[in-house]
Amino acid sequence: MTIFVTYENMKSEFARILANLGFSDSKADRCAEIFAVNSLEGVYSHGVNRFPKFIMYVKKGYVKPDAEPGLIKSLGSLEQWNGNLGPGPLNASFATERAMKIASENGIGLVAMGNTNHWMRGGTYGWQAAGKGFVFIGWTNTEANMPAWGAKDFRIGNNPLVFAAPYGKEAIVLDFAMSQFSYGRLETYQLEGKQMPYPGGFNREGKLTSVPGEIIETRRALPIGYWKGSGLSLLLDILGSVISGGLSTSEITKMEGEYSLSQIFIAISLENLSNRERIEATVNDIIKNYKESDPAEPGIRIRFPGENVVKVREENRINGIPVNKSVWDTILSL
Amino acid sequence: MTIFVTYENMKSEFARILANLGFSDSKADRCAEIFAVNSLEGVYSHGVNRFPKFIMYVKKGYVKPDAEPGLIKSLGSLEQWNGNLGPGPLNASFATERAMKIASENGIGLVAMGNTNHWMRGGTYGWQAAGKGFVFIGWTNTEANMPAWGAKDFRIGNNPLVFAAPYGKEAIVLDFAMSQFSYGRLETYQLEGKQMPYPGGFNREGKLTSVPGEIIETRRALPIGYWKGSGLSLLLDILGSVISGGLSTSEITKMEGEYSLSQIFIAISLENLSNRERIEATVNDIIKNYKESDPAEPGIRIRFPGENVVKVREENRINGIPVNKSVWDTILSL
Repeated sequence: MTIFVTYENMKSEFARILANLGFSDSKADRCAEIFAVNSLEGVYSHGVNRFPKFIMYVKKGYVKPDAEPGLIKSLGSLEQWNGNLGPGPLNASFATERAMKIASENGIGLVAMGNTNHWMRGGTYGWQAAGKGFVFIGWTNTEANMPAWGAKDFRIGNNPLVFAAPYGKEAIVLDFAMSQFSYGRLETYQLEGKQMPYPGGFNREGKLTSVPGEIIETRRALPIGYWKGSGLSLLLDILGSVISGGLSTSEITKMEGEYSLSQIFIAISLENLSNRERIEATVNDIIKNYKESDPAEPGIRIRFPGENVVKVREENRINGIPVNKSVWDTILSL
Repeated sequence: MTIFVTYENMKSEFARILANLGFSDSKADRCAEIFAVNSLEGVYSHGVNRFPKFIMYVKKGYVKPDAEPGLIKSLGSLEQWNGNLGPGPLNASFATERAMKIASENGIGLVAMGNTNHWMRGGTYGWQAAGKGFVFIGWTNTEANMPAWGAKDFRIGNNPLVFAAPYGKEAIVLDFAMSQFSYGRLETYQLEGKQMPYPGGFNREGKLTSVPGEIIETRRALPIGYWKGSGLSLLLDILGSVISGGLSTSEITKMEGEYSLSQIFIAISLENLSNRERIEATVNDIIKNYKESDPAEPGIRIRFPGENVVKVREENRINGIPVNKSVWDTILSL
């Protein structure tokens, strides 16, 4: 059963639970805000639905409520930070802010953070930076959850990658994993007895299939763009772990849980560019041209990444955030 | 008929032709080197096979042999440059060198260059930077050559994206376009009467197809990862044109030829990172783990991006570079 919870109610429940687990008031508030906004904006898988698992990780000690990121080394426009296993969303939000600060001074800033935790929704940090007028590029590695191209055992992560740019008062935010579909998505389609909209992995015969159960059976989910996404996952892991000095997917996978990740946060300031006055018009023109595409079939709307967030945010503000009642009951009992 | 041309012979023919068109000796030499190395390393489509079209662009005045890039604005670690319609490979090579220089001083350097030309093979600049110990991220926009996801007319570019990292004396270099297959590849398969190895676009009925002729008919080639590659193409164009102040895909497409592109070159120095001493071991461990993947079928070799380049380079050094005789005859007559 789906119930509807207001943003304010959801955020205050999250904050209550976090404060009880040793988060300071300000950290509980910011962390609750990130989980609640992710839910408000429709990313339930990394908002309300993920919150109980996040709490479990805190209770297991994988996520340290009071840990603060620490500067390891500054090279001017690039900084290496140790996440000290603090809460992933707080560390990532801090790193984004820090990258923006450097970018304000030098045009571009890169913060590499090892030994941090799952950032939940990568788009959070894209929206954070773009909302203040910055371009953002960032990614995280993960535990191994996908086979390399041509292989059948998990060796690479789905390593979500984020690109964001300001767009008027909103933003264009692309937040995507290197796997075509997540396991959560495959399982949802399987439960509903549906096929995936497009091929998402290989079946036992080594053929592409859209049947979720066949992919879950072989565990051969498809990297985006076949060999290209496999290569991109590898490069993101190399860059993330090398530049941060943190763990690689291979090393993370050897542990008992998915923690101590390596993440990259790049901010670019648009404030002092020579073309400052033309930027808004350039972006508007690109988006207009994109959206005026001729639909392949009547009725298809051509959407840019992040476009839907604005609509869902508004709907969930008005109607409340839809939550599975049993998930919400679990949260209330935490 | 395929003939075999030595690297030295190919390079000197290219240099002769370029010098005749007004390239200074040093520019003719470097530009010839890039085209010849691309061929030596097996990227014939952006080496020897592309050379006659490059020369045509020079003759039409789209590419100015003697133009030098000019600094528009420096923000410290980010610089905006005007490519002044100079030769794309020379401009890109210059921008890569400049980004490395900034990165040596500040950890990271970004050079954004508008009003430049086709860089041929993006991997060239990844190898250039990684060969000197830098991480590299770069991309270019292009004219519109692909429909947005859900659309049927060309509105987005295939906007090649490059990630590179040093690997011993060689490099790991990922160089990929946002289209699953290029039109050149589709046409080659069609000529040979073969199907693509995986679905590469939509047919007239709006279904995914591996038949090249069906894709060429609808012009609905597939972005990598379906909607994800469409979004990534859009973001690369926005970032490229906004940060450089150059033209967007939409603007380039309005012109009579594909020139005045916008490109981004990011270099990251590994020299002064806190984990400097561990980097080589980290990369070796990641690659070892990747290559030890369990093959989906016996005999499949799991390869990392750029791995094959080393082998092809060696083979072509020994046997000469394979070239279609009519292409080579055309070049000799230039």
